[in-house]
Amino acid sequence: MAMISENFLLQSVAARRLYHGYAADLPILDFHGHLTAKVIAENPRFRDLSEICLEGDHYKWRVMRANGVPERYCTGDACPFDKFTAWAKTVPYTLRNPLFHWTHLELARYFDIHELLNEKTAPAIWQRANERLQSDALTPRGILSKFRVSALCTTEDPLASLEFHEQIARSGFATRVFPAFRPDNALRTHDPRAFNTWADELAACTGLNIADLSDFLEALRLRHDEFHRHGCRLSDHGLNHCYAEPCTPREAQSLFAALRAGGHLSSAESAKLNSHLMIFFGRIDAEKGWTKQLHLGAQRNLNSRMLELLGPDTGFDAMGDWIQATSLSGYLNALAREDALPKMILFNVNPSDNYLFASIAGCFQEASSTAGKIQFDSGWWFLDQKEGIELQLNALSNCGLLSRFVGMVTDSRSFMSFPRHEYFRRVLCNLMGDEIEKGLLPDDDELIGTMIRKICFDNSAEYLALPTVVDSTPFAAAEQRS
Amino acid sequence: MAMISENFLLQSVAARRLYHGYAADLPILDFHGHLTAKVIAENPRFRDLSEICLEGDHYKWRVMRANGVPERYCTGDACPFDKFTAWAKTVPYTLRNPLFHWTHLELARYFDIHELLNEKTAPAIWQRANERLQSDALTPRGILSKFRVSALCTTEDPLASLEFHEQIARSGFATRVFPAFRPDNALRTHDPRAFNTWADELAACTGLNIADLSDFLEALRLRHDEFHRHGCRLSDHGLNHCYAEPCTPREAQSLFAALRAGGHLSSAESAKLNSHLMIFFGRIDAEKGWTKQLHLGAQRNLNSRMLELLGPDTGFDAMGDWIQATSLSGYLNALAREDALPKMILFNVNPSDNYLFASIAGCFQEASSTAGKIQFDSGWWFLDQKEGIELQLNALSNCGLLSRFVGMVTDSRSFMSFPRHEYFRRVLCNLMGDEIEKGLLPDDDELIGTMIRKICFDNSAEYLALPTVVDSTPFAAAEQRS
Amino acid sequence: MAMISENFLLQSVAARRLYHGYAADLPILDFHGHLTAKVIAENPRFRDLSEICLEGDHYKWRVMRANGVPERYCTGDACPFDKFTAWAKTVPYTLRNPLFHWTHLELARYFDIHELLNEKTAPAIWQRANERLQSDALTPRGILSKFRVSALCTTEDPLASLEFHEQIARSGFATRVFPAFRPDNALRTHDPRAFNTWADELAACTGLNIADLSDFLEALRLRHDEFHRHGCRLSDHGLNHCYAEPCTPREAQSLFAALRAGGHLSSAESAKLNSHLMIFFGRIDAEKGWTKQLHLGAQRNLNSRMLELLGPDTGFDAMGDWIQATSLSGYLNALAREDALPKMILFNVNPSDNYLFASIAGCFQEASSTAGKIQFDSGWWFLDQKEGIELQLNALSNCGLLSRFVGMVTDSRSFMSFPRHEYFRRVLCNLMGDEIEKGLLPDDDELIGTMIRKICFDNSAEYLALPTVVDSTPFAAAEQRS
Repeated sequence: MAMISENFLLQSVAARRLYHGYAADLPILDFHGHLTAKVIAENPRFRDLSEICLEGDHYKWRVMRANGVPERYCTGDACPFDKFTAWAKTVPYTLRNPLFHWTHLELARYFDIHELLNEKTAPAIWQRANERLQSDALTPRGILSKFRVSALCTTEDPLASLEFHEQIARSGFATRVFPAFRPDNALRTHDPRAFNTWADELAACTGLNIADLSDFLEALRLRHDEFHRHGCRLSDHGLNHCYAEPCTPREAQSLFAALRAGGHLSSAESAKLNSHLMIFFGRIDAEKGWTKQLHLGAQRNLNSRMLELLGPDTGFDAMGDWIQATSLSGYLNALAREDALPKMILFNVNPSDNYLFASIAGCFQEASSTAGKIQFDSGWWFLDQKEGIELQLNALSNCGLLSRFVGMVTDSRSFMSFPRHEYFRRVLCNLMGDEIEKGLLPDDDELIGTMIRKICFDNSAEYLALPTVVDSTPFAAAEQRS
Repeated sequence: MAMISENFLLQSVAARRLYHGYAADLPILDFHGHLTAKVIAENPRFRDLSEICLEGDHYKWRVMRANGVPERYCTGDACPFDKFTAWAKTVPYTLRNPLFHWTHLELARYFDIHELLNEKTAPAIWQRANERLQSDALTPRGILSKFRVSALCTTEDPLASLEFHEQIARSGFATRVFPAFRPDNALRTHDPRAFNTWADELAACTGLNIADLSDFLEALRLRHDEFHRHGCRLSDHGLNHCYAEPCTPREAQSLFAALRAGGHLSSAESAKLNSHLMIFFGRIDAEKGWTKQLHLGAQRNLNSRMLELLGPDTGFDAMGDWIQATSLSGYLNALAREDALPKMILFNVNPSDNYLFASIAGCFQEASSTAGKIQFDSGWWFLDQKEGIELQLNALSNCGLLSRFVGMVTDSRSFMSFPRHEYFRRVLCNLMGDEIEKGLLPDDDELIGTMIRKICFDNSAEYLALPTVVDSTPFAAAEQRS
Repeated sequence: MAMISENFLLQSVAARRLYHGYAADLPILDFHGHLTAKVIAENPRFRDLSEICLEGDHYKWRVMRANGVPERYCTGDACPFDKFTAWAKTVPYTLRNPLFHWTHLELARYFDIHELLNEKTAPAIWQRANERLQSDALTPRGILSKFRVSALCTTEDPLASLEFHEQIARSGFATRVFPAFRPDNALRTHDPRAFNTWADELAACTGLNIADLSDFLEALRLRHDEFHRHGCRLSDHGLNHCYAEPCTPREAQSLFAALRAGGHLSSAESAKLNSHLMIFFGRIDAEKGWTKQLHLGAQRNLNSRMLELLGPDTGFDAMGDWIQATSLSGYLNALAREDALPKMILFNVNPSDNYLFASIAGCFQEASSTAGKIQFDSGWWFLDQKEGIELQLNALSNCGLLSRFVGMVTDSRSFMSFPRHEYFRRVLCNLMGDEIEKGLLPDDDELIGTMIRKICFDNSAEYLALPTVVDSTPFAAAEQRS
């Protein structure tokens, strides 16, 4: 029997009715991920299964390493077929890891392959998948169309030129591709060299002289405006924890001046300046009706030897256990006090903090353009698996309104990840169906099914209010500059 | 089909046998809550469904806000029917939140209404419920009788006059209503103005001049004595975390003197003085055989704008993630060292700390007037729902003795909350019944059913040893003074 | 019906097939525990059920205390039968605590007794069990043979003479008994008196003069070598949290000199020196291909009055909530940077940190003599029960490779604990069988059963690479010295 059957993950009759009746056919609104606009714009064919399945996928590299596979088959110079074979040998060892499910879901949905992947089946699967990769259906754009991705947000530094976003928009491609504004580099105030290099590039990009803090903020605001003109409606921050230190404008100016002059800020000083910057970022999002995403709690680049060898985002990150409550609630409160709290989506990577985040979100809800102003979002990174998704759904349900949840994102660097939406939807329907059958939810498919449709698509569409038509005028201007 | 069926939450035949055979008919001993003695003494009729269902209920306000309902329909000046309608519109959005179950359990148990509440059913439900509220069965006392509440503890500042407790006792009302002693104001040592205002009132109330620490402790002890004469057998503290800083009597005197003179204590000094005070509170509870409750880990009043507008206890609290272990075990150890450890009930609001609390409780058990001297108690606040209750029951079971558990409290400001005992009992019976059917517990209803009866009532009755007859003499004296 | 049926804990047909077909008949490799080699060498009969069941078993003492049993029946001078009776009276109160299952599993497996233990059945069980304890089958060695313990590691201070390990090896006893090297005393750098007493003993034991840090490390290395000659292949550390403070060799020397001269190190200094020592311990394990165990997160001896009365390891420990991530990842990184990372097994006692530990382990995997170099191990101490085991299995599965897991250890002071391996195996098979039946795992008994066999035995045998033949030469030398 194939791993991925029609009713995969759906343990009850009600779950099956809900999934097939309400969730299966929905389009995807993938509002957070790490695909690149360039690839979507240029739409090259994938060379082979190794490229589409393994390149850049640190989830897979991690378990290969845990399985004793030498690095040359992960990120190294082994040939594509050997890398794929090393992965195929590892797959049977991934039982109970989400990669076992994801892998077979990917093979089924992209290639209509239903065998289990292992050393023995690898050569035939390699050949069959590579053949299919030659069809237009499996180019980047083919994949976006196949999975009915209505809109997609890429994660961009404020300096990103956005030319490829323009190109895609101009092409009339059905999937809308928007940038999300992620100014992590503006917060590297603990590293004067990196900060100033980036500030210099920001100056060049905006044509401003960045001498003091107000110049810096003005330049950031120009980029924020420019992103807005390209349809951007989300910002994003990847932080260990929030910043909520008291910092007067004068202190901030003085700290910025010291930093801009190449000086080192102490850890407390850097936190103060970042607190000031985060308030600024909150304000400009609120002014434009954007949604701010906070990705909190990941410990990055723990293995310094491998960082030197391979760079970041290669599978050497983990969750952390920082104290989160005071700084997160302090940040939200600081914005709420001045009526500058934008819509906000909180992502948490340590499952021990799920209830904490969900309960804090509940303290800052307010009547807004849309309900559910402060969101506690789906199982992120290590939590993007059945147990992690269920834990998040339960924490959110018990401390807030699941019905207002804006739902799943792939958060992936791979074009193979769209079935994670299917995975999430099956897990969600399974949970709800089980509770219908137990009498914990009303036995009313229309009521529950409608809620599921909203979580899987409608809520995010309404909440994010992404532009449906993007004005092409600013694109030309931006193109000239970049 | 009605949401609240006979076997609601009871998934197995054994669970149904246990609930209906052992738990359903038990009276309620509600040893911690926030009802006011005045209302029970005066026993006014509820004006309408909005008053009994929504006033003071910050659980409901929170989800209304999360649903985008403007504040005027929560705490504001909208008319009662409009507020109720706003709530009714929100109810279908609370699926999977405990409020969905609670609400329909309340409608069923108070009003014999079995429809789902929503915008469409709201007007008829409003009318029908309001009619029933006119009967004596649904006055405050009617409700206490209907739910067979044998005793109830209210949560009182040491300055509370207790006149209404006397009045109730004198009236011969079947439900015994006792105060619990909650001296949170004595620990506001970080706020000299608030502290001294309260200390002045304590002086006035006791007729003592509070010049130094020993006066302050003497005054507190007088109030503790007075509460004891009114049948009080429980104290309570709401703290972020325990205090267990070393502090000599001399240091404490000096810190108190500085504070009493209007000086500001540093955060470390305040913690030292509070540590000293908490030891004192432990001692006087131990001397009188009282039970001390510790409510640890809540972050309060996170939204300062809303605090200014609405005051505390309006739905802007969350859980925290303070380090708990060292201070909690340090406090228990300090009392145990001097053989002054009272019976103690630990309440925890962040589910990540359940196992921690349960394992710490196990280090301070000792032969006592009753078994289970140090209790780890039921899912509190955000945890008072099916998952939260199950997590607490599992942590307690695995690290201690569930059989000695003193069980559920409503911890509510609302007369509508008594069905939460039914909810807890159903969850408990469901858990135990499931394990009987799986062979994890002996298939012996008498054994398991007896344990359930104890958890739901007998254990708390025996453990707390509340007075069954209260001497009325001191009441008269207290009345003259107040 | 007996509590411990053939299919105890096995809820599905697949679980039963897996357990009986793959797991039930496996030998045991118990690589971490607290049995003493002396008892195995001398092999005395157990006096009575009280001795084998209650002596040294602080798990049982804890719940007896929680049940109100006076201390004299736990650790005191009550007679063995009275102690056993006090325990028997407590057993019915342990429903849902792992002791309820463990106790009846022990009675069934050691004595073929299938009644529930309680006050009424206690006398007959006492008599019947005591009779059976007179047979050779229930001596220490009889028990090891009965449970097919292929190898066992005892936990030893570096000063331990190892004479009994030699004696056992020489005797040709089928169960191999190896020491594990646990230098906790070398890390007591916060306590100059204890540290120097131990350093003096280390000097005496090795014949070295320990004047400076290099002498100290040399002496530790001599003991490490000596342990290696006795077949030791594991080290172990019991720590609140890891140490990963920057500390130059010069700083370490200077701190050591101050300490060795009787000086007090500050808490920060002690952490620095310990960081340096832990790097040393990592290096020597890596050099010899040993496996390092880290037992992190337990708070010990919380009840100081009882510590004074009864000493450590008497049931007054709990879990802690220290910040773990930075120091754990910092330690692993420091070793990995210099290519001195040994195989490592991480044990965590606070279930809130399961995912954290599992995700950190995944950052330090590398191709090695065996796959799964950094292990996140089984539910330890308070987590050694069904829920705790399942939580660990899920965290490991979701963040790493369950298939490479080295599995269960008893970690016990009692000869009655070997059925915990059966308990673990049943829980594991139940989890996997359930997922086969739900379609979450392939319906392939050979695939899943093989994985189960590896987790239950083969993985640890391959990973640890314990010697199968121990060279007896060094034994003679060691014997002369000791």
